[in-house]
Amino acid sequence: MPRYKITFAYDGTKFAGFQIQPHQRTIEQTLKTVVNRMAKDPDPAIPVIGSGRTDAGVHALNQVAHFDFPFDIPERSMVRALNSQLPLDIVVKKAEIVPKTFHARYNAHKKRYRYRVKQGEFVDPFRRNYTAHYKYPVDIAKMQQAAQDLVGTHDFTSFVASGSQAKSNVRTIYEAKVYHDEALDEIVFEFVGNGFLYNQVRIMVALLLEIGNGQRPLNDVKRVIAAKDRQQARMTAPASGLYLVDVSYDE
Amino acid sequence: MPRYKITFAYDGTKFAGFQIQPHQRTIEQTLKTVVNRMAKDPDPAIPVIGSGRTDAGVHALNQVAHFDFPFDIPERSMVRALNSQLPLDIVVKKAEIVPKTFHARYNAHKKRYRYRVKQGEFVDPFRRNYTAHYKYPVDIAKMQQAAQDLVGTHDFTSFVASGSQAKSNVRTIYEAKVYHDEALDEIVFEFVGNGFLYNQVRIMVALLLEIGNGQRPLNDVKRVIAAKDRQQARMTAPASGLYLVDVSYDE
Repeated sequence: MPRYKITFAYDGTKFAGFQIQPHQRTIEQTLKTVVNRMAKDPDPAIPVIGSGRTDAGVHALNQVAHFDFPFDIPERSMVRALNSQLPLDIVVKKAEIVPKTFHARYNAHKKRYRYRVKQGEFVDPFRRNYTAHYKYPVDIAKMQQAAQDLVGTHDFTSFVASGSQAKSNVRTIYEAKVYHDEALDEIVFEFVGNGFLYNQVRIMVALLLEIGNGQRPLNDVKRVIAAKDRQQARMTAPASGLYLVDVSYDE
Repeated sequence: MPRYKITFAYDGTKFAGFQIQPHQRTIEQTLKTVVNRMAKDPDPAIPVIGSGRTDAGVHALNQVAHFDFPFDIPERSMVRALNSQLPLDIVVKKAEIVPKTFHARYNAHKKRYRYRVKQGEFVDPFRRNYTAHYKYPVDIAKMQQAAQDLVGTHDFTSFVASGSQAKSNVRTIYEAKVYHDEALDEIVFEFVGNGFLYNQVRIMVALLLEIGNGQRPLNDVKRVIAAKDRQQARMTAPASGLYLVDVSYDE
């Protein structure tokens, strides 16, 4: 039973998130169904283990998962076989045969998330599912500066949604940046960390937008982190703007 | 009763096309419902006249329509009022009070269409509704050259889908170009003409792709036009890649 690591993208718009839930269309269930059909529906069913969950409406450019497969199929053929059965809103970009020690969730040590914001008076109909819309003026340089206060190892209790099952709220952010994407005329927030809490990126982005718009002072990130109180951050940016960009593993 | 000319964009993915059809979600019906609600539902209902139809799945960047409205509302307020009631896949960009002689369909004398094609082995999940996917290699310079044979006044009988109700198949194409869009890494076809027949742009694009891929000789456009026979062109590119870019009117 070789173990396959797959790297895949999805448009999260029509999924109720990554994780299997009864009577919902989820990414995990969609992959699991295809993998098990290809494996002639073994009993018990083969699980597909993702690097972590994404919420309903959240996208991925290079999400990672692994599964054990009963037949030895060349990597390129595995990619083609999966894509020929998956719906068009998921695409497998790569499949690799990996040692049994590889685990998509436990071995993930770094994740990169991107958040896209479109400005303008009205929602762009072509980007409504792929960005957040924010019509108030913002100062990108200010947000870039404020974002640096998120970098480092902090207790992110102020940035976690209720419903999180994390044992600890301490996480490390290695990199944070805010820039203007000229090609799409969108504001992009990017974060690299060793892991993120439930809704953490969306709460951080909402806070940075309030700073960029002048509703909060430039140094408010430090205060909110120190408060360890979810009431301090308040807003959550919508799922549609969020992308899991990639997941890093030890070599 | 001032007459309003409106310019609007839509994501055609979830519409059964522009024209009103029973039990279908169409752009014309969606606009008509909002305009009549704003006008306190007069009897008979106010019609909304578009510059022309677009098919199910076809998009528009600057479609034009007109309607007569019982109240005198400033142009900016009309834009805001319409957008506050329209679904997010239609956005009104401009409203202008125009003379009663203006007619969105009869006075339209030029239309620009764009067609987007994405290459790559697999469909891009984020562009699946906004481009066509063509996985075979194509020579853009060759398509650009072949497209010039479409320019001019021709009988486009070979390029009209069955079901067209046009009295004449003679149309004039003023401009045709094929280029690579670096920002989105897509191939773009663009046509300006005095009007286009049912499915004409999609049939022209399919033919040009076959030339670009070497399945047809470079000079095949001339032969197909001369044949006046729909069987010669055969393929129709999918609706998802097509955009009505703008409509020109006499000053």
